[in-house]
Amino acid sequence: MQNQGTIEARLATLESEARWQRDQIEIRQVIASYGPLVDVSDRLERSRILAQLWTEDGIYDIGGVRSCQGRDAIAKVFEERHFGQVPEGVCHVMGLPHVHIEGDTAVALNYTCVMRPDGDDRFYPWRVSANKWEMVRQDGKWLIHRRTNRLMTGDPDARAMLEHIDQMTPDLSPPG
Amino acid sequence: MQNQGTIEARLATLESEARWQRDQIEIRQVIASYGPLVDVSDRLERSRILAQLWTEDGIYDIGGVRSCQGRDAIAKVFEERHFGQVPEGVCHVMGLPHVHIEGDTAVALNYTCVMRPDGDDRFYPWRVSANKWEMVRQDGKWLIHRRTNRLMTGDPDARAMLEHIDQMTPDLSPPG
Amino acid sequence: MQNQGTIEARLATLESEARWQRDQIEIRQVIASYGPLVDVSDRLERSRILAQLWTEDGIYDIGGVRSCQGRDAIAKVFEERHFGQVPEGVCHVMGLPHVHIEGDTAVALNYTCVMRPDGDDRFYPWRVSANKWEMVRQDGKWLIHRRTNRLMTGDPDARAMLEHIDQMTPDLSPPG
Repeated sequence: MQNQGTIEARLATLESEARWQRDQIEIRQVIASYGPLVDVSDRLERSRILAQLWTEDGIYDIGGVRSCQGRDAIAKVFEERHFGQVPEGVCHVMGLPHVHIEGDTAVALNYTCVMRPDGDDRFYPWRVSANKWEMVRQDGKWLIHRRTNRLMTGDPDARAMLEHIDQMTPDLSPPG
Repeated sequence: MQNQGTIEARLATLESEARWQRDQIEIRQVIASYGPLVDVSDRLERSRILAQLWTEDGIYDIGGVRSCQGRDAIAKVFEERHFGQVPEGVCHVMGLPHVHIEGDTAVALNYTCVMRPDGDDRFYPWRVSANKWEMVRQDGKWLIHRRTNRLMTGDPDARAMLEHIDQMTPDLSPPG
Repeated sequence: MQNQGTIEARLATLESEARWQRDQIEIRQVIASYGPLVDVSDRLERSRILAQLWTEDGIYDIGGVRSCQGRDAIAKVFEERHFGQVPEGVCHVMGLPHVHIEGDTAVALNYTCVMRPDGDDRFYPWRVSANKWEMVRQDGKWLIHRRTNRLMTGDPDARAMLEHIDQMTPDLSPPG
């Protein structure tokens, strides 16, 4: 039979495991919320809600566009062309993320396909890009500290960013 | 050292947390099963299996097509054109869902890209749409009570539906 | 008040549940890591890291290409055309998987969209395919025993493979 000490250890292990699993879910929820939040952002009032996904001093580094810092700057970057695209139809489809958590920080890698209408009964992938989401836990909530986005056009920067997967999967040691 | 009461409270918290996390997984499993189930539905026998994902009185409101209610009506809606597409190749790719659970009901938002062949070594996105999955737990199992689907062609109805994300992420309060 | 025996049973249930939920996460992580790992594989040194996702005697059966067995053969299959595509831009976007676990084995079904650049500000889906990931746990780690991939061009083999969903969702019993 289990003694009290063993019960305490088993409870502590379960609590730590439940925390890690919840973090895995919550980080995917942040990434999954991005699509609906951006695809209704047709004005600053809406893109300011979206920008709340970042920390106060968060960075959004957009491949082929530019990098901006701070929630206000991030909210405004969508003015340039995104607000005009929303009434025409624009859809940010999120690919499956790989998520690596270390305490109160985490990194996720995934792909985004931004789809746009292409005439009757047809859409086309406009931007297909890789994302590195560097996240932090603040007041119990996961926020984006830095999102780096790179188009998948063969850009060596995109590949250098994606090679971060090696640090997220350390047991895939190269053979020999 | 922990006393018995504290152990009881910790167990109850862990059990409630495990239930929530399992719900998060199970709802994603329902959404993920939709693709394989629909893409082999080339006859009523198969679309009847797919329709079991809904409640008996479930609703499938298809953007640009029509709304139907009840498993039998849902199974039959695929006769119109989907059965003919299956042998030509049709592929329902599911984007990452955001899932919000309240007890025995849940809402999930995600995007679907329906891909079709477009000649040699090429496919095209035929329907890119937003989905709102309103789900209920019945006899311990998550079923679709209502699936609303809207094409992402700039349709204001699609955007109104996607703005439900605000109720799923209440802590993204608008600044100022 | 709970007695010791009940606490033991509740702890054992929670531990078993946490194991199943962690397996669900870890299997998704393997599938999600495939995209970044393959899209930086422009030489054998890199595709050998990717091949570590398989068991030593693992099988990769590629629809419309060929089947190969063993990590070395799997690493080399990417030489044929994939290494040349990486500098041009190639992006393996993973759809949501459905995952069914039985002890130390698991099966996952999902779709892959391989996107490639198509001139300025445009990509196209090159290969849209269904995947059946047959996985095993070895030394506490989930590895791919066999990945079967079939193009979604109406291929009856693809549909036969996707019908495995019936065994993964046994409670979707056909009505009547």
